[in-house]
This record gives sequence, structure tokens and C-alpha cells, in this order.
Amino acid sequence: MSNTILPPSGEQKAIRWYPPSYDIRIETVPIPQILHPDDAIVKVQFAALCGSDLHIYRGHGGVNKDHTCGHEFIGAVVALGHSYGGDNTGRPSLYSTLKIGDKVVSPFTVNCGECHACRLGYTGRCPEGFLFGSPALEGGQAQYVRVPKGGGTLFNLSDPSTWSSNLSNKEKEKALTTLSDSSLLMLADILPTGVFAALQVINHPKVAPIITGKPWPMCFSKDDAPSSNQISLTDEDKILTVAVIGLGPVGICATVSMLDLLATRQIPYKFVAVDPLESRREKAAAVYNTIDTACKANGEFAVCSIDEAKDKVKEWTGGVGCTAVLEVVGNTSALTLSYDLIRAFGVIVSVGVHGEPLLPFTGRQAYNKNVSFDFGRCPARAMFPPAFDLLGDDISRRASRRFSDVFKVKRQDVFGGIGQPASLIDRVVDFSQAVDIYRAFDKGEVGKVIFDPWRA
Amino acid sequence: MSNTILPPSGEQKAIRWYPPSYDIRIETVPIPQILHPDDAIVKVQFAALCGSDLHIYRGHGGVNKDHTCGHEFIGAVVALGHSYGGDNTGRPSLYSTLKIGDKVVSPFTVNCGECHACRLGYTGRCPEGFLFGSPALEGGQAQYVRVPKGGGTLFNLSDPSTWSSNLSNKEKEKALTTLSDSSLLMLADILPTGVFAALQVINHPKVAPIITGKPWPMCFSKDDAPSSNQISLTDEDKILTVAVIGLGPVGICATVSMLDLLATRQIPYKFVAVDPLESRREKAAAVYNTIDTACKANGEFAVCSIDEAKDKVKEWTGGVGCTAVLEVVGNTSALTLSYDLIRAFGVIVSVGVHGEPLLPFTGRQAYNKNVSFDFGRCPARAMFPPAFDLLGDDISRRASRRFSDVFKVKRQDVFGGIGQPASLIDRVVDFSQAVDIYRAFDKGEVGKVIFDPWRA
Repeated sequence: MSNTILPPSGEQKAIRWYPPSYDIRIETVPIPQILHPDDAIVKVQFAALCGSDLHIYRGHGGVNKDHTCGHEFIGAVVALGHSYGGDNTGRPSLYSTLKIGDKVVSPFTVNCGECHACRLGYTGRCPEGFLFGSPALEGGQAQYVRVPKGGGTLFNLSDPSTWSSNLSNKEKEKALTTLSDSSLLMLADILPTGVFAALQVINHPKVAPIITGKPWPMCFSKDDAPSSNQISLTDEDKILTVAVIGLGPVGICATVSMLDLLATRQIPYKFVAVDPLESRREKAAAVYNTIDTACKANGEFAVCSIDEAKDKVKEWTGGVGCTAVLEVVGNTSALTLSYDLIRAFGVIVSVGVHGEPLLPFTGRQAYNKNVSFDFGRCPARAMFPPAFDLLGDDISRRASRRFSDVFKVKRQDVFGGIGQPASLIDRVVDFSQAVDIYRAFDKGEVGKVIFDPWRA
Repeated sequence: MSNTILPPSGEQKAIRWYPPSYDIRIETVPIPQILHPDDAIVKVQFAALCGSDLHIYRGHGGVNKDHTCGHEFIGAVVALGHSYGGDNTGRPSLYSTLKIGDKVVSPFTVNCGECHACRLGYTGRCPEGFLFGSPALEGGQAQYVRVPKGGGTLFNLSDPSTWSSNLSNKEKEKALTTLSDSSLLMLADILPTGVFAALQVINHPKVAPIITGKPWPMCFSKDDAPSSNQISLTDEDKILTVAVIGLGPVGICATVSMLDLLATRQIPYKFVAVDPLESRREKAAAVYNTIDTACKANGEFAVCSIDEAKDKVKEWTGGVGCTAVLEVVGNTSALTLSYDLIRAFGVIVSVGVHGEPLLPFTGRQAYNKNVSFDFGRCPARAMFPPAFDLLGDDISRRASRRFSDVFKVKRQDVFGGIGQPASLIDRVVDFSQAVDIYRAFDKGEVGKVIFDPWRA
């Protein structure tokens, strides 16, 4: 039995980019059709504008072919290829269970879910992993979008039994009834990217002495041997000093994720949130104000301009530097600042999208600070479950089962609202405003913007 | 009560370097004296020549002041400053227990053992951590050497109760009776550096899916949630493919350490040992021949030239690349090769000493492969206990208590002999040969060389 239903035929509205740069057009184009048995066609309910869209917008991406923009979308399945339904033993379960009408969110890249990279959870580097909104694959800022390898790529929000998580199915269902579609859209990219950045920090071997309270290399042993360290760590030594560079939407997600991990694991922290733009610093401060007081007692938080950040880290660490820096911008000046702020034996986690310049570090600089770097794209599908848990936590688990039952970040204040001081999302607009919105977003005049492709 | 005894007065022989480059002289200089109460004076029994000595030798180190060479030495304490003996509560125990006549080995840098960096085990970046054999601190290629912060820096081989380890004190004592002084000298730098490289690989979050058999980010959870991964890892997915670039003495130590970890943890492996020099490849092959057959059954090992390495990794991984690369050379071509060999979501651990050139990667390359880097100097004192265990293991623990009781690398064949096919140490020479030996070592014509400062 096949679920195949033809998608609507005819035309649709789409936001399209033209080379070489800054050329956004609202056009009428054909509704995409099934091209491969694994394809799904999604009717887009909301599509968001993302900071990494600006690389192509500005002409920095080396892209020279016009295409429909956008890699963040949420919507409903309107057509499925022949692969869906019937016997799909050994394939991702969505090939068996996904149905017309199901509400889905997509990661920003395709991932087959079946190859070596996907099996390891490195879904962002699936060899079939084309980026939506690129010359290789039409994007989601349209009324309809074709999703290749839909059974491996999509998340079925209509059936929370299709992913395992720290939440029970009942808790997931409860969260899904309450969460707004605009907040669920953050699962396409920026929230998993924030969780990815924070998880890379917390699991890095160079952070292990702070987490375990045991020195290198004892921090890797379950027991106390081997060690030659004779002076124990002090309470001060066990403070995780962390900087987030870039307080745009991804930076806010990284900040919330990092604060959540610090609170959940009760790790004392000093947190420096850095951005040259005052409006973004105000947003970060408002987000921190949504944190429970009990958590705040465990650490300190400062929003800083670039110069203020250098002074603050110096003051807080006696000149030693940050244990970890989360670089969420994606250019050489952000990387240089990361190096300035990092301690010897620190880790710089960079989730920014970088371009052609060489990394701005000499070999000697890298050696002299014993610095570690983690670069690259979030494997968004693999990170979906912890990102969903982060989003749904305060709805379903005010009295948490596994972790601290302290109510931490009031996530609904961050992800649920629109246009409020602590809201991640600034506004919802229709396609007719796209040209102006791209221009304003490029200049940092608006925050996260969502397009409603059906609003006149 | 103080142990203070004046060091011998008078003159000694020393190997000294003069700027700008390639200028080695055997000179008669004053015997060093106690300059600070924490100083110890060590009568040098053996001092080794290390690949990183070549940076200064070649004039690449930016050094413009003559000094005594060498940062690897083993010997006996002949004088101690006023800090030693008496009440040293709260200080490293060697300030209370170290005695004249004790046999000691020193890490290649000073470390106080008391500061924030030392408490965390990051002893290689102690703010008082001068490098022996640099303009800041006279080196160990002499008959006597002054060791600042001796109670924090030295290891007392006469009293194995002063460090904890996976070996009991009795086992340590047994190992110490059997191990040659030339092999114990490897604890100064190259063996801990090899262990450091291997431990960074095995504990890196990007290697976790292979070690745990669970995909990212499940690999960080003790339980199975959260996950959206629907296809389990295959046995092939759980093979750790690793390359060591550079098969000089540190590369051999990194190879032995890595093989030991793979065997101990029973991780299936494919191991590519890379060097352009045939003599070094032959050494690596001979070392692998000292491995127990039972361990070999768990993996494959190939020694390769640079071009062969690219082909071998392609063949073994179907074009995916290595999970981890250990870069033990310290130049841009070795880093470029590391990038060529690494998989997406792989880790490059670089323990080579790098110079002024920028890292040879664009931001886009780093992003596109989701690559991680760990740079920097080994915290040799912190790494001493596992390095000692590695050295002493096959003497004291043929029937191992904790791990597999498979006899793995026959370490005595690698570290114990001199000038044999699998020996790490090529020859022991007197100071009169130093000029020739530096020249031959620079050209790759000799392997690891040890100086005996007392041989005529």
C-alpha cells in the first residue's frame, strides 16, 4: 500500500535570491513535484530567516545560481513518494509511518538516516545532505517545498513516539499541544545548533577537570589513580568560565542551552555574553532575567561589548581566561576574539559558518595556548531530541524526574512569545515584506523573523 | 631541619647553542648553584636529544641568546634549597621528602605544582613553567642542571610512593629495579607526549560514538535516551581508523600509546603510520612486530609514505577518512596532510611544536569537515603516572589486574634496548660527538640519541 497522493499542481509564491548579491525577489514558480520515491512534499506553514542566509545574500557564499531561499520551515505533508507505506524493514521508520497531513519540521539539511555518517549521528555531513535554500536544493521560503529522503530527514511532530527522548510520549504530547508553531520552527536549525555548541563544550576533555573536580588525566578515570597531582582543586578552580560571542538568534539559543546544562549539572559558572550591538546585548540580558533565582545563585552573568568582555574575563579569571568560548558569528574577527578570551587548555567551539579566509592563528599561537577547536555544522536531526526536550521542558516537567527540580530558564518567555524583550522571535511577516526584511536583518535592525507564506 | 648541601663548586662540561643557527659548542661553564630556596641541583646521568631541540638548532625558534641545550635529563639530586625538609604543609610533598642522592627525572618544563594551572593538571602551562634548554633556563645537556621549583617539578624515582598510579608501590618498585635508566629518561618528554596525544583522541567527544557504539549525542548518555537515530551502528562503523603522522621518537611513543589504549579497551582499529623516511617506517614496522598476536587480530596496521597513506585511508574507509589523526611533526605540510586524511567529524590531535606560519586551513575547510583540533604541549608532569605505567606494565603486570590480561606491546623491546630494530633509542654517545650528532639528527640520519656527560 502506498500513501502516494499527488501534490497540488500549479503555481506558488517563493522568496528567491539572484546572484551576485543583495537581490531578493518574490516570484511565482511551479509547485514542486515528487522526483524520487523517497521524496516528501511539505506545505509550508512558517519559514524563518536565519543569519546563515546572509552568507549567500551578501554574495559571500561563492554561489552563482538563483534559487528559492530558506532552510528553516515547518508545515504539513501533502504528498509522499512510492517508498512510503508498506514494508520498509531496515529503513528509518518514517518510511513506514509518515502520513499525508502529518505536521513536520525539517532540519536545515537533508540526511538519509541510513548511511555511515547518519548512523554515527553525524547527520549534518550525510553525503546526500544538501542544504535547503542553496543551488543544490530549493529552499523553504515558499508555499511548498520538496524534501528529499523525507523518511530520514523529517521529524513527525504528529507522532512523538517516533523519537526517543528524556520526555515520555505523554510529556511530549503535552508539550506539543502547548508549544506554538513559531517556537517549534526553532527546531529546524538554531536551537539544535545552540545545543550542539553547548554539548561540545560540556563533553570536551579539556573541560573535564572542572566537571569532575579531578585534574588531567585523572578526570578520565572512574577511580582516583593515576595521579601525581598533590594539591587538590579549589572551589575557584571548579568554576566554568564561558563566553558566547555573538548574541543573534543562534547565540541566544547557545546561551540558553549552556545555562540549562550548567543549571542541570549544578556547575558553578561565570558567563560572558558578547556582542557589539546594544540591541542584542539587551535581548541577552532579558533572557537571563528569565532564569530562576536559585540557578543564578550558582554563577554570574555579564553582557558585554567586545572591549568590556576582555576586561570582564581578565577580572573574573585573574588573567587566566575562559575555559570555553562559543563562537556563533562565523568570521575571523570573532575567531580572533575567541583566542584572546580563551585560557591555556581551553576549548573554542565554533558553530559559525566560515568563509574563504585562513584561520587567523599561527601554529605557534595554537601550540602556546594548548587550544582546542571544534568547528562545523550542527547535525540538526541528531540533535533534535535534546533540542525538543529543552523547548518542551518547562511545560511538561516543572517537577523534573531526572534532574534538578529547579525551574530553570523560563523557555516560554524566550521561545513562545513574539516581539517581547526576551523573545527570540521578533516578528511574523508576509512575503511582500521580504525585500525590506532581508535588508533590515542584514543590518542588524531586526531580530529573528518568520515568514507566513499564506498571509496576504 | 634543612637538607641543604652546597652543590660542587667549579666547572663542568655543557653542550651549548649559539645564534643564529646550527652552532653547537662543547664548553666549560660554571656548575649551577642554588639561586632560590625551591631550587634543586641535579647531577645529570643521561640527557637526550629531542626533535623539538631542532627548532632552536635550525634558528626557527626566534631565539637569539646562547644557552645550554636539552630538556630531557635523568640524574641524582646533589643539592637542595632551604625550602626542602621541615614543615611544608600544603606544598607538594617532595619539598618534605626529597633527599640528596635521590634519583630523579624531570619533565621538560618547570611546573610549580601549586598554581591554578598545575592544580588542574595543566602543568605544561604553569606560569612559572620555563622550558629547559632555552634562553629562560639552562638545559640538561650538561653535567649538572639547576631545577627551579624542584618540589613541584621533579619525579622521585627513589620513592614511588610519591605518585599514585594503576600500579601498586610494590609493582612500581619491581619495575624500577628492572627498567634501564635510558628507558626511564623517556619519561621526561616523549613518552608522556605520546600518551597525551593518544588520551586526547580516546576521550574526544567526536570519537565517542565509536567507543560507546551509540550515535551522537546518545554517546554522552548513560541510558539510551535521547535519540532519533533509527538505524544502529554496524560493526564496521565501530572501527577506529587512526593515522599517526611522523614516526620519529615521539611518533613511536604515540603509536605505542595508541595501540596500548586500543588493545586495553578492545577497540577494533585500522592504524596508518605515516612518514616520508624509509628508516622511520622500518622502525614503526618493527615496533608493531612486538605486539601480541591476540591484539593484532583486533585490527590492521600499515606503515606508509605520504602518498601511500592517502590511498590506504581511502581504501580502508571507502573514502570517508580517519576518525583521528595524531600529528607529531609540527609543520604546515603535516597539518595539511592531517586535513586530507581526516573524516568529517574527525579530530586532529597535534602535539608537534609549531612556528610562525598561519594554520593552513580556511574557515570554510574547518566548517565543511566539522573538524576538531587539539593543539599544544604535553603537561608532562601530569602525564607521568600513565606514562610510567605504560613503561613498567609488562614487567610488573603480565597478568594485569584491571585490564585485559593479554600481553600487548612488548615494551622492553621498544624502550629497553639500544640500536636494535624495534628500539626507540639509537645510541648513547659522549659530549665530544655532539656537533656531529646534532647535524646527523637534523638530517634524519640517526634516531633518538642519549648523551652520557661523564663518558670521556
